[in-house]
Amino acid sequence: MEDLRVNMDRFKVDFEALAQIGATGDGGVHRPAFSQAHLAARAWLKQSILAAELAFHQDAAGNISGLQAASPDTTRTLLIGSHLDSVPHGGRFDGALGVVTALEVLRTVREAEIPLPFNLEAIDFTDEEGTLVGLMGSRALAGTLSQEELDNPRGGKDALAEGLRRAGLADPLAASRRPADLAGFLEVHIEQGPRLIDAGADIGIVEALVGIGSYELVFKGRADHAGTTAMDGRRDAGLGAAALVVAASRKVRADYADCVVNFGNAAFFPGAYNIVPASAQLGMEFRAPNQSRLDMLEQELLALARQTAADNILSLELTRQACVAPAPCALQIQEAFVAACDRLGLKHINLVSGAGHDTQAMAAVCPAGMIFIPSTGGSHNPGEYASWEAVENGANTMLQAALSLIAAY
Amino acid sequence: MEDLRVNMDRFKVDFEALAQIGATGDGGVHRPAFSQAHLAARAWLKQSILAAELAFHQDAAGNISGLQAASPDTTRTLLIGSHLDSVPHGGRFDGALGVVTALEVLRTVREAEIPLPFNLEAIDFTDEEGTLVGLMGSRALAGTLSQEELDNPRGGKDALAEGLRRAGLADPLAASRRPADLAGFLEVHIEQGPRLIDAGADIGIVEALVGIGSYELVFKGRADHAGTTAMDGRRDAGLGAAALVVAASRKVRADYADCVVNFGNAAFFPGAYNIVPASAQLGMEFRAPNQSRLDMLEQELLALARQTAADNILSLELTRQACVAPAPCALQIQEAFVAACDRLGLKHINLVSGAGHDTQAMAAVCPAGMIFIPSTGGSHNPGEYASWEAVENGANTMLQAALSLIAAY
Repeated sequence: MEDLRVNMDRFKVDFEALAQIGATGDGGVHRPAFSQAHLAARAWLKQSILAAELAFHQDAAGNISGLQAASPDTTRTLLIGSHLDSVPHGGRFDGALGVVTALEVLRTVREAEIPLPFNLEAIDFTDEEGTLVGLMGSRALAGTLSQEELDNPRGGKDALAEGLRRAGLADPLAASRRPADLAGFLEVHIEQGPRLIDAGADIGIVEALVGIGSYELVFKGRADHAGTTAMDGRRDAGLGAAALVVAASRKVRADYADCVVNFGNAAFFPGAYNIVPASAQLGMEFRAPNQSRLDMLEQELLALARQTAADNILSLELTRQACVAPAPCALQIQEAFVAACDRLGLKHINLVSGAGHDTQAMAAVCPAGMIFIPSTGGSHNPGEYASWEAVENGANTMLQAALSLIAAY
Repeated sequence: MEDLRVNMDRFKVDFEALAQIGATGDGGVHRPAFSQAHLAARAWLKQSILAAELAFHQDAAGNISGLQAASPDTTRTLLIGSHLDSVPHGGRFDGALGVVTALEVLRTVREAEIPLPFNLEAIDFTDEEGTLVGLMGSRALAGTLSQEELDNPRGGKDALAEGLRRAGLADPLAASRRPADLAGFLEVHIEQGPRLIDAGADIGIVEALVGIGSYELVFKGRADHAGTTAMDGRRDAGLGAAALVVAASRKVRADYADCVVNFGNAAFFPGAYNIVPASAQLGMEFRAPNQSRLDMLEQELLALARQTAADNILSLELTRQACVAPAPCALQIQEAFVAACDRLGLKHINLVSGAGHDTQAMAAVCPAGMIFIPSTGGSHNPGEYASWEAVENGANTMLQAALSLIAAY
């Protein structure tokens, strides 16, 4: 089994075919969850599963699977997968790489007639990117998605209802499985960052996926005439907001080298050149590798925001937004990836994923693990790119890790 | 003539009647230029002019005047006035005070049968507030409004065309008068700031109106994933913009005590919580009491912006917006206001106007002067307020200053 490799010719044909579905003409794809292009990609996957003579399955959340059954029968299943949906005008690797890899791993295992102690399932999760809900399919399967979230989806209730209707789905929460049936989850993804290339490594083994906190902050001061009000007589909400952006960035760089903070949106009101801003809105997001650091960072940032408001004689409204708990990856799966890399002669490093992925949802209920392959061109844009060599290394690492888990079971 | 006073009973009736036109129910008025309420206020003024047996005149820019002719005939005219338009949901004093005062001064002079060496003209200027163009009527009359500005008005071309159509106007530039025909311009306005009240003064004699510069700044960096991009690897346009807001405020407080700066609007793009801002837009406005300080401040702020961009590895696009030259008030008119205050036993102080007014436009082409009366409640909002006593002091100062100029001619 250690000599088994995926079929890259077949892989490339599939990957290129998928990249044409919703192609934007600049190397990217536009496949928001349950858009026409996304539905077409799902139809393509169903055909590919059937053509590979895998059992086809779709659950109540729209997750699409190809299955290779264990012998003897068992309800325990090792899942391998990712997602086919993209952000609007995104790249062709994000998600799709993991789905095609999962399909190819199953085909390779099936062709090699390897006896399975648990079922193998290649899965495409619904709406990882959050056009509608975010990690919708994986969290529905894990049983951690709530009705409250479906009632207040980030993409809007109408968009979710319309999306479910188009996909012929009624009750995503019914997709939940018993954790006892989940032998584990494996995912491969492009890194979307420079660490592997900087380190000259082939494979990044994810130790944990960061936790994410986010707040909307609204500083409130007083609208004053920008000509007739002395600088010292102002309660300038924009100045308070700006001071927080600067102070928070400085604090995180100085004291939270393992964390990040981002102020992704801002707006001053009423928004006229000659009126001192009466209020200023900021969107703040921060990430940390584990829960204790996330909690510390959250307290520090909120204290900074309150201090900045006080310094500028402003009031402050804080609204907690979506949060994601940090997810450590399972040690036995990290070890399976290490063994696979060693077997393949690939240089690997350990790292923390700064982004959320379906692995994050699965890690809450079963042993889960994830690898990155080197990529350039950033993230969530048409320029994201990984070489065929990197893709092949990732696919064979996934195959060999799965074989390790099969052998060790 | 030194004992002559305005008729405050008549003044109050007029002022209250005008405050009902476009009233917002909270003490304020909503009379944007050429709105229905503004047209109604203009119709009211025309009736009041005719009722006072003054000659009515409307020019090509929509400026409305009541005239009392000199004897013998002359083309020289002393104008007194302000504007009837308001900002959206503004206060009932801003502009209206100066128009009703001008009307009352002319009525008082007419009733006293004072011989005039020049014509007296009470004038309501069109669109002082800039709903359409800004200082449109006064700059049209002064001949300093350009066709380029009418082609690119701040309120949009459609709004200007529609406004002119509603008012029955075709060519505002045709309102220009020869500077030689302008004996001077006087205006009274609420202070819209705390200096008179802080000083316990009745009248503020404006030495100069500040110059105003404004820029749109766009910092451009790179959109990165806010989780997978290290803090030090970012080119965060939002951070650059925030740093400028903080640094500019600090610089002006420290080194430009006679100046102000304001960042009235801001926006980060693409505007998602989890994307490092690729670009950040700021609206920057600054004011200084004279041209040399305005030039110094402009250079300092632009240097700060460029330095902030460089510090954060950003590019910077600067677009110069509307600018207003500082306008010194005429010494002989300041002296007429001083003489009037002394005669009336009113405490006066000299000050610089941080706001632009029609006086600014008129000062470019003729001797112009302006007084403030104490007011509370700030500026451009329904809560702005001046007491009847303050209003009466202002009206009598205007009357006595006009009489001084008549006597001294």
